[in-house]
Amino acid sequence: MTDPIDNADKPRFLLAFQPSGRQGRVVEGASLLDAARELGVDIDSICGGRQTCGKCKVLVEAGSFAKLGINSAVDHVSAPGTDEQDYARRHISKWSDSARLSCAARVTGDVLVSVPPESMRRKQIVSKGARDIAVEIDPMLRQVFVEVRTHELGERDGDWERLQEALALEWRLAGLHIDILALRQLTAALKTGKQGVTVTIWNEREVLDVRPGYQEGAFGMAVDIGSTTVAAHLCNLQTGEVLATASMMNPQVTYGEDLMSRVSYAMMHSDGLGKMHKAIIDGLNALFANAAGKANVAVNDIFEAVLVGNTVMHHILLGIDPVELGAAPFTLSTHAPIDAKARDLGLRLHPAANIHILALEAGHVGADNLAVLIAEAPETKPEMALIIDVGTNAEIVLGNNEGLWSCSSPTGPAFEGAQIAHGQRAAQGAIERVRIDRATGEPRFKVIGNEHWSDQSTPGELAATGICGSGIIEVVAELFLAGLLQSDGRFKQPESNQPWHPRMRYSGANGAKGEYILATESQTATGREIVITQDDIRNIQLAKAALYAGCKLLMKRRGVTAVDKIVLAGAFGSYIDPQHAMVLGLIPDCDLNHVQAVGNAAGDGARIALLNKTRRAESAVLARNVHYIETAIDPSFQEEFVGAMYLPHMTDAFPNLSTRVALPARAAAGRRERRSRRH
Amino acid sequence: MTDPIDNADKPRFLLAFQPSGRQGRVVEGASLLDAARELGVDIDSICGGRQTCGKCKVLVEAGSFAKLGINSAVDHVSAPGTDEQDYARRHISKWSDSARLSCAARVTGDVLVSVPPESMRRKQIVSKGARDIAVEIDPMLRQVFVEVRTHELGERDGDWERLQEALALEWRLAGLHIDILALRQLTAALKTGKQGVTVTIWNEREVLDVRPGYQEGAFGMAVDIGSTTVAAHLCNLQTGEVLATASMMNPQVTYGEDLMSRVSYAMMHSDGLGKMHKAIIDGLNALFANAAGKANVAVNDIFEAVLVGNTVMHHILLGIDPVELGAAPFTLSTHAPIDAKARDLGLRLHPAANIHILALEAGHVGADNLAVLIAEAPETKPEMALIIDVGTNAEIVLGNNEGLWSCSSPTGPAFEGAQIAHGQRAAQGAIERVRIDRATGEPRFKVIGNEHWSDQSTPGELAATGICGSGIIEVVAELFLAGLLQSDGRFKQPESNQPWHPRMRYSGANGAKGEYILATESQTATGREIVITQDDIRNIQLAKAALYAGCKLLMKRRGVTAVDKIVLAGAFGSYIDPQHAMVLGLIPDCDLNHVQAVGNAAGDGARIALLNKTRRAESAVLARNVHYIETAIDPSFQEEFVGAMYLPHMTDAFPNLSTRVALPARAAAGRRERRSRRH
Repeated sequence: MTDPIDNADKPRFLLAFQPSGRQGRVVEGASLLDAARELGVDIDSICGGRQTCGKCKVLVEAGSFAKLGINSAVDHVSAPGTDEQDYARRHISKWSDSARLSCAARVTGDVLVSVPPESMRRKQIVSKGARDIAVEIDPMLRQVFVEVRTHELGERDGDWERLQEALALEWRLAGLHIDILALRQLTAALKTGKQGVTVTIWNEREVLDVRPGYQEGAFGMAVDIGSTTVAAHLCNLQTGEVLATASMMNPQVTYGEDLMSRVSYAMMHSDGLGKMHKAIIDGLNALFANAAGKANVAVNDIFEAVLVGNTVMHHILLGIDPVELGAAPFTLSTHAPIDAKARDLGLRLHPAANIHILALEAGHVGADNLAVLIAEAPETKPEMALIIDVGTNAEIVLGNNEGLWSCSSPTGPAFEGAQIAHGQRAAQGAIERVRIDRATGEPRFKVIGNEHWSDQSTPGELAATGICGSGIIEVVAELFLAGLLQSDGRFKQPESNQPWHPRMRYSGANGAKGEYILATESQTATGREIVITQDDIRNIQLAKAALYAGCKLLMKRRGVTAVDKIVLAGAFGSYIDPQHAMVLGLIPDCDLNHVQAVGNAAGDGARIALLNKTRRAESAVLARNVHYIETAIDPSFQEEFVGAMYLPHMTDAFPNLSTRVALPARAAAGRRERRSRRH
Repeated sequence: MTDPIDNADKPRFLLAFQPSGRQGRVVEGASLLDAARELGVDIDSICGGRQTCGKCKVLVEAGSFAKLGINSAVDHVSAPGTDEQDYARRHISKWSDSARLSCAARVTGDVLVSVPPESMRRKQIVSKGARDIAVEIDPMLRQVFVEVRTHELGERDGDWERLQEALALEWRLAGLHIDILALRQLTAALKTGKQGVTVTIWNEREVLDVRPGYQEGAFGMAVDIGSTTVAAHLCNLQTGEVLATASMMNPQVTYGEDLMSRVSYAMMHSDGLGKMHKAIIDGLNALFANAAGKANVAVNDIFEAVLVGNTVMHHILLGIDPVELGAAPFTLSTHAPIDAKARDLGLRLHPAANIHILALEAGHVGADNLAVLIAEAPETKPEMALIIDVGTNAEIVLGNNEGLWSCSSPTGPAFEGAQIAHGQRAAQGAIERVRIDRATGEPRFKVIGNEHWSDQSTPGELAATGICGSGIIEVVAELFLAGLLQSDGRFKQPESNQPWHPRMRYSGANGAKGEYILATESQTATGREIVITQDDIRNIQLAKAALYAGCKLLMKRRGVTAVDKIVLAGAFGSYIDPQHAMVLGLIPDCDLNHVQAVGNAAGDGARIALLNKTRRAESAVLARNVHYIETAIDPSFQEEFVGAMYLPHMTDAFPNLSTRVALPARAAAGRRERRSRRH
């Protein structure tokens, strides 16, 4: 370290760094790395000036830079020694004539130094995963190599005190704690490493791990715990790279398909919470091992995990009784972000690993929604955005850089294929796309796992097993567009003097219960028809009305009548066709070009929070600043809900839709009918 | 809380509190408790003004107190309401006419208030245990009752946020964390307690426990982990009372009698550390359960433990390899005090309980010695004190309020009865006292478990099994005083023309190996003689020389030739006779009236650190300020050691001794001999 007082009489030279543009006078003999730190330029380094990690590589520019007043030359820094020459030889493909290790090159004259992007400590990277996201790599974890002086006979200081001394001197890290398990490693690590150890530090505050010698490698997990699916991304915390992705069915599904049935399970069984807690912990451990195995990373090298989930998943994960979330006033145990040790939660990562769970927004808007906000950052943009994450509850956020409003709407599981006669999850064999001929009412469909539509496959090839969420949306919209469904959601009754439509079947008193045969016996794997029943339609109506009413409630509260952009998050958003969604009236009117599906944005947000501590900290503040609206107590929600049961909504509420979809005459009549009834 | 701004226009009255003498003007209607806090008078309270705990009881004095300018009267505070009257009725035996609950009585005029000792938050108590110690009760743990407002529909704050709000409002506690396990208890506790909960807080910083309703009861353990014996005191953290004491043999004894053999065990066996760590953890858990059982306290109500032990015990307890402590430079893993969660150490107290391990002074001077310093507080007194804690190593501290010096001296286990032919621990059957007739050389002795000396018992009643530390000291001193032992430690050889002494037996070349028959076959339980061999004498000489040399080294470094006081800590110090110790030259010369045995001072110090957080914090500073002297590298230690092998020391070094003990002519000659040899 250059000490300005000790060096008061030494000559000083002008240094400038690009691209930061920082410059200043630096004492002769200072290393470029120390000079950079003195001038506030953040250059990476792990080995602490031992010329082994190469992270601090810079380029010494040659030439006269008049604007800067610098006449720079390669020989204005000390010549490379044998260690640096060795390093350059070993990494010749990434080396150039002007390249230098900034820890080794010492100032002997005025010089202009370029810091290449890979040497900046806070690198801007694009983290490729389910979706590529741009994020500045600045994690909570830091690994540094230090050499600790040996103990002298008669001195009091122990290994930990001397390690602290070295960390303060070399890395300006002070006031550190050490995890008891790391303390157990310390003495042996110093011995094996001949006093050189690699130290893993969390939040510049706590030593989590000490290993002998120079051992780079800190990894993290970003995990989205959905009620149905749990997805985990294993990231390299130094590069931001996603090394492996693994997902699984949430093992709590055994105890209840949707959130409310899990809350009931906890309420009805004295060990219900314990069982569900154990199920998710065991599941996560299997998932972590799976992802680590794929990437050939030791779970013991995973030092942090960022977990997100809805409020019920959050509570059960932490072992907190979720029963209060099942009824008004929907009391959270806490909304604050949580930091806990992996070992305290029974999670098998590094035992001292920090488990961070993002803040909750409110009783029904969880950490998963906050993660979506981290990924989408609507609070930084002027467009009025509507962000919809459909699960068993739809979590909806509306807003822009002037404020955000959120609510949760009880859509139920119909969009996920539950409560539908032949509904199923989006998996092999599920019907995911449906088109119905407007004139004949004949369907064609696409089955997951088969790239051809049903009219271009032999029936045997199709082997449909059921219909998933996106298929249900489409079939209902198409039935309506083909005139087989009325605006109130009832199947059109055959005129008494006409034959039934060949795809329709009626039962019950006066044939009140209709059903539509989507797939014939020969088209299915089971040999039984796949039909859409009147109850299925009813459940979809309820779900879409809830979603739409939630959106409208937020718009009303925010005082806007239109939005600039609709973002559909989650698997559901990726599969559904926005146009059909709009026909059904799932979402408010918006230019279809501005309806965007962003996939697992919650997972992306978790990944951003894992890789960037500032974004993580900001999210805790954001969570407190989102205006939460409780749908359960808002009278306008009920009002919107009732109106939104119809198919579709009033044309004047959907200018973008009406220009694109030709509505059949029957439907237009239905709309008129409804308008008059409401007045 | 009285708010001076809101109350700017209300009248103010003069209040004075005794015995503190604090006084000031207080707004009308303020409770006496709030007034006390405003004036800096620390009155206890747990229930937070609910008139149920009675801890805040004060006496309202009646009369004119001219010096204070106060005309006080019972009716200068509001009359008691029904709750307070109820409380008074239920506690009538401790009530008086002037008694009031300060949380309920409100100021209506000038008043003088007496705070009885039991109502002061930082009570001065005498904690009765192995030794009674005066300590101010101010533990790290605090229990408070709060009522948490209910959750309102649509508000974001969770239970934890509302609990924090209540703790800040009622108890001025801010910036708290909550243990993940306490968070799990919170929602249910609020429900069961109808929003009223008792919260246990550590160090005004972390919530460890939340229970429904008002549930007083926080306990702590003070534990001294000796190499041989482990002793634990269970204390009530509110009253300081020692509720139970339990002790056990250190289960690590299986792996080695003394420290060095345990260090070797760790070195020689790959699982050696693990086994010894598990042994002490399992042992402590049994000990805790035992003490808790005796006092009818739930281990789950024990929220803190303060543990002390020598450096090797410290490391093994924490699961840290002690191997470096076995050889120069005697490197500690850390000397800092440790705070860890009980669950992280596998200790079965409250799982969030804090385990505090006092700081170490140096490689050979452990937390047990620091505990002795806490108990003796030599740094606060002007007398030059020598504090000796004899175990397998003797830890010695010399000093006064101008500074402390410490060292550790390798006495070995002879003082504990090990490495002695018929040595044993101080237990039933051990010979603990010995007198040898100066003229005849005939012995008499006392056996533990028998109140009579051997010459007043029938041989069959004695049933001696061996000789313990105090017996060994006495027998060697008595042998010397009776002229049977030479100054160099060799048994006196019989003149060729005289018969052997009837108690002596000689063997080896030229009869060089003598032994003294202390107990005859008929006096022992085994039917075999108990003898003192030449090797026994040699081992005692080595031990006492090490101890003496350590004392002298410190005195030399401190620049004193005499001490004002000698404190003998530990079991050994309690059993040995100071006069015999001085004859042998175990300890430097000192007025025998100022030689004091203080018993398990380490345990006392642990108890003080448990009950008073200031003393605990001060001890960490003290540990760093003690000047440690490494005997292994100090040439004067070796020099003193060699000289101290003789029996006894030069008379001029023991003025106090020479006036009391008549030295036989032979011994005086020996002394002269040695003096001439050294010059």
